[in-house]
Amino acid sequence: MAKELKELTPRSESYSQWYQDLVIKADLAENSAVRGCMVIKPYGYAIWEKMQRQLDDMFKETGHVNAYFPLFIPKSFLSKEADHVEGFAKECAVVTHYRLKNSPDGSGVVVDPEAKLEEELIVRPTSETIIWNTYKNWIQSYRDLPILCNQWANVVRWEMRTRLFLRTAEFLWQEGHTAHATKEEAEAEAQKMLNVYADFAENFMAMPVVKGVKSANERFAGAVDTYTIEGLMQDGKALQSGTSHFLGQNFAKAFDVTFADKDGSRNYVWATSWGVSTRLMGALIMSHSDDNGLVLPPKLAPYQVVIVPIYRNEEQLAQINAKVNQIVAALKKRGISVKYDNSDNKKPGWKFSEYELKGVPVRLAMGSRDLENNTIEVARRDTLTKETVTCDNIDQYIADLLDDIQQNIYQKALDYRAKHTITVESYDEFKEKIEEGGFILAHWDGTPETEEKIKNETKATIRCIPFDGDKTPGKCMVTGKPSVRRVLFARAY
Amino acid sequence: MAKELKELTPRSESYSQWYQDLVIKADLAENSAVRGCMVIKPYGYAIWEKMQRQLDDMFKETGHVNAYFPLFIPKSFLSKEADHVEGFAKECAVVTHYRLKNSPDGSGVVVDPEAKLEEELIVRPTSETIIWNTYKNWIQSYRDLPILCNQWANVVRWEMRTRLFLRTAEFLWQEGHTAHATKEEAEAEAQKMLNVYADFAENFMAMPVVKGVKSANERFAGAVDTYTIEGLMQDGKALQSGTSHFLGQNFAKAFDVTFADKDGSRNYVWATSWGVSTRLMGALIMSHSDDNGLVLPPKLAPYQVVIVPIYRNEEQLAQINAKVNQIVAALKKRGISVKYDNSDNKKPGWKFSEYELKGVPVRLAMGSRDLENNTIEVARRDTLTKETVTCDNIDQYIADLLDDIQQNIYQKALDYRAKHTITVESYDEFKEKIEEGGFILAHWDGTPETEEKIKNETKATIRCIPFDGDKTPGKCMVTGKPSVRRVLFARAY
Repeated sequence: MAKELKELTPRSESYSQWYQDLVIKADLAENSAVRGCMVIKPYGYAIWEKMQRQLDDMFKETGHVNAYFPLFIPKSFLSKEADHVEGFAKECAVVTHYRLKNSPDGSGVVVDPEAKLEEELIVRPTSETIIWNTYKNWIQSYRDLPILCNQWANVVRWEMRTRLFLRTAEFLWQEGHTAHATKEEAEAEAQKMLNVYADFAENFMAMPVVKGVKSANERFAGAVDTYTIEGLMQDGKALQSGTSHFLGQNFAKAFDVTFADKDGSRNYVWATSWGVSTRLMGALIMSHSDDNGLVLPPKLAPYQVVIVPIYRNEEQLAQINAKVNQIVAALKKRGISVKYDNSDNKKPGWKFSEYELKGVPVRLAMGSRDLENNTIEVARRDTLTKETVTCDNIDQYIADLLDDIQQNIYQKALDYRAKHTITVESYDEFKEKIEEGGFILAHWDGTPETEEKIKNETKATIRCIPFDGDKTPGKCMVTGKPSVRRVLFARAY
Repeated sequence: MAKELKELTPRSESYSQWYQDLVIKADLAENSAVRGCMVIKPYGYAIWEKMQRQLDDMFKETGHVNAYFPLFIPKSFLSKEADHVEGFAKECAVVTHYRLKNSPDGSGVVVDPEAKLEEELIVRPTSETIIWNTYKNWIQSYRDLPILCNQWANVVRWEMRTRLFLRTAEFLWQEGHTAHATKEEAEAEAQKMLNVYADFAENFMAMPVVKGVKSANERFAGAVDTYTIEGLMQDGKALQSGTSHFLGQNFAKAFDVTFADKDGSRNYVWATSWGVSTRLMGALIMSHSDDNGLVLPPKLAPYQVVIVPIYRNEEQLAQINAKVNQIVAALKKRGISVKYDNSDNKKPGWKFSEYELKGVPVRLAMGSRDLENNTIEVARRDTLTKETVTCDNIDQYIADLLDDIQQNIYQKALDYRAKHTITVESYDEFKEKIEEGGFILAHWDGTPETEEKIKNETKATIRCIPFDGDKTPGKCMVTGKPSVRRVLFARAY
């Protein structure tokens, strides 16, 4: 059983099969009977809950409140913002009827043709339209601003090719929608939330990200500017991990949302929206995991420590239980989440494999010799190293170790990214290097046409125009026209 | 403005209009542009979040884990369990298409007739079918049992007459779905979760409930037994506040879910499901609130204490700020949530009305005389009484006061229920008394026919056959046939 459980396709053989195997075998998620919709299994959901809780705290610390808006959007709303409807995916779930009835032949139920909606409803692919239609009633004067709402919700985009967490028809996310009196305030909000996302990615997911602004081609439909954080996965592909949009007055104009300013003038409201989704689960998995299974940063692990007893008889187990219970209590007192697995229907070897597969950051094992010596075996999931340490002050030792693992995982990902971020001078070099994966910094003339050409010829896109880094001007690698600075290219998920 | 805000229709005039006014004016929720779907506003959502957090903790303490299952259910799944499809509302949102396209006349978007689903998808009205279809793959042997999953989700039931929180087309809820090896274990689980709900209702919502089992007519479609908690609202109507179902092997048989037992035999799995929804918000509002607005139990109030300064000039305000900040810190240290509202664009009177309307349990006010005397004015929302107390040990005083308010609100509701629970001996008496509202305990012969007759003639239903209380047999008030015990009748939401 242990062997079978651990059987992941090696990354070197097929990265995508490895990913699929891992998501299934670590009990994170699976495909459902409904095309493109996933079931998030309890272990996967526990990680998502940890992400949610942390993000939610960060949103609240930055002054946001949660609310809830309808699942459905009247079809006509989607047409109100021209760029939004033009650019946004039209692959949506459409509700046309509101009743079933027993089929005449008694074989089940059929849609009742009498119960046809006058106007079709769209299952929300994103909620700008329904929310701005609501904000219209909430906003009269500058005193009603800013509105800083977030919602945790499910959304549906009818994707043809789906992959667990990375691209599914239904996914879970949060979407912040804010309304402001001034352009400056809205722009600052969009940037602030991008920084919250980057902070979360780096300090909780242990995933380094590049912050920047999207090119026009990659901008959210209806946005003036889209800010993004881009991570680099172990296969050299980029993953857009969160976006924050400065929407200007586009949605306020589409839904006629104005406010009376202090000077009595009536102006359109300025807007932002920002979101991260269960896609972050894919990013987390692909940033750190290895051929043995998941590697989780301690800050997001459902349990940070697992303890396994190794014993020959009930008497030994009783002694180990007594000792381990003290350790468990000491760890819990420090806020460390710990699972003591002394179930007797699985062997220690099976348990070791299982927790390795599931990415538990620290595994402790205690046998009879440890009991005699007042020691315990400590195994790190990130380095797969083991050592035997004294039980004295084990709680402090583990607390430090968890910090170290969190830091080490981040550093490893950062080193990987540094090694796989290169600068190229010519389009030929670009075409050659892009095959190796990774981020490529190159000059671009700033036109959608050139970007499109590069995409068609190399499958690489501009991930962002980074906020930081080298800002020296140059010449576009494709057209030779002036380039204000190098931009970040990659093939992407 | 203060006056306008407070303008609720008195309960004596129209209870339902009072409820509607309160939900809107206290910023809890509002109707959306989508028929029957509500927007839960930040203040309402903050209360729901408190409920969720507490319930979620209670579910986890009783060994449950969260997971997530698809929003959509293939139409054919609904037909698989005969009672489920027969008894369950067929008023569902039906997805028939998966794409929009630009309309030929350029006026917007239309449904693409080419993108018709082979099988229609139903937006989940409840998830037994999709979940048991999933459990089929999770369960092979007794080692895989029990499965104790819960999900927090949105569901849709196409209601014709909707009321904010009480009956909406889309609502938020949690649904637990458990799988067990034995009938006894499943029955115990269904009862355990009913007790969790009752504990939550009484000790957090401060709402006394009657626990019992539903009659066959009122049972969940597909259940063997439905357990319920029933609350009594201030207008004398009952509100079903949570249900827990023992599903027997019905869904296991419908989806062919069997397991290899310890003795090697193959048996169908036993099931439960249980849920509470945003309907609890309605129950909370209607249990305690008054003509001045919301009355919230301290354990579920987004902030338990609000502090308002009363000052004539900036200097006084600065002095009050300094003093109040100490109090705020002391309260926070005790885990009491507190808001200090020293905003200068609203007058104290306006603030008093606003926080009264919003049901903040304790309001503190500090003026210049308080500053001199080291006192503060304490106003209780539940009794609308005020007193001036010393600032020494104010944190302890407030902590005790919050406990007292929580207890008092519960006692008041309990007294109301005791006063409005009567026993009747004849059907004539029943018909007379039911007009006055309240719970009525009466004998019933146990047949669906008699229950139906009573319902048609009086609009009263059997809320439950209580677990506790007088179990003396008697004769049915309608037919004179034997009755094993009195059952609980009421008109209900």
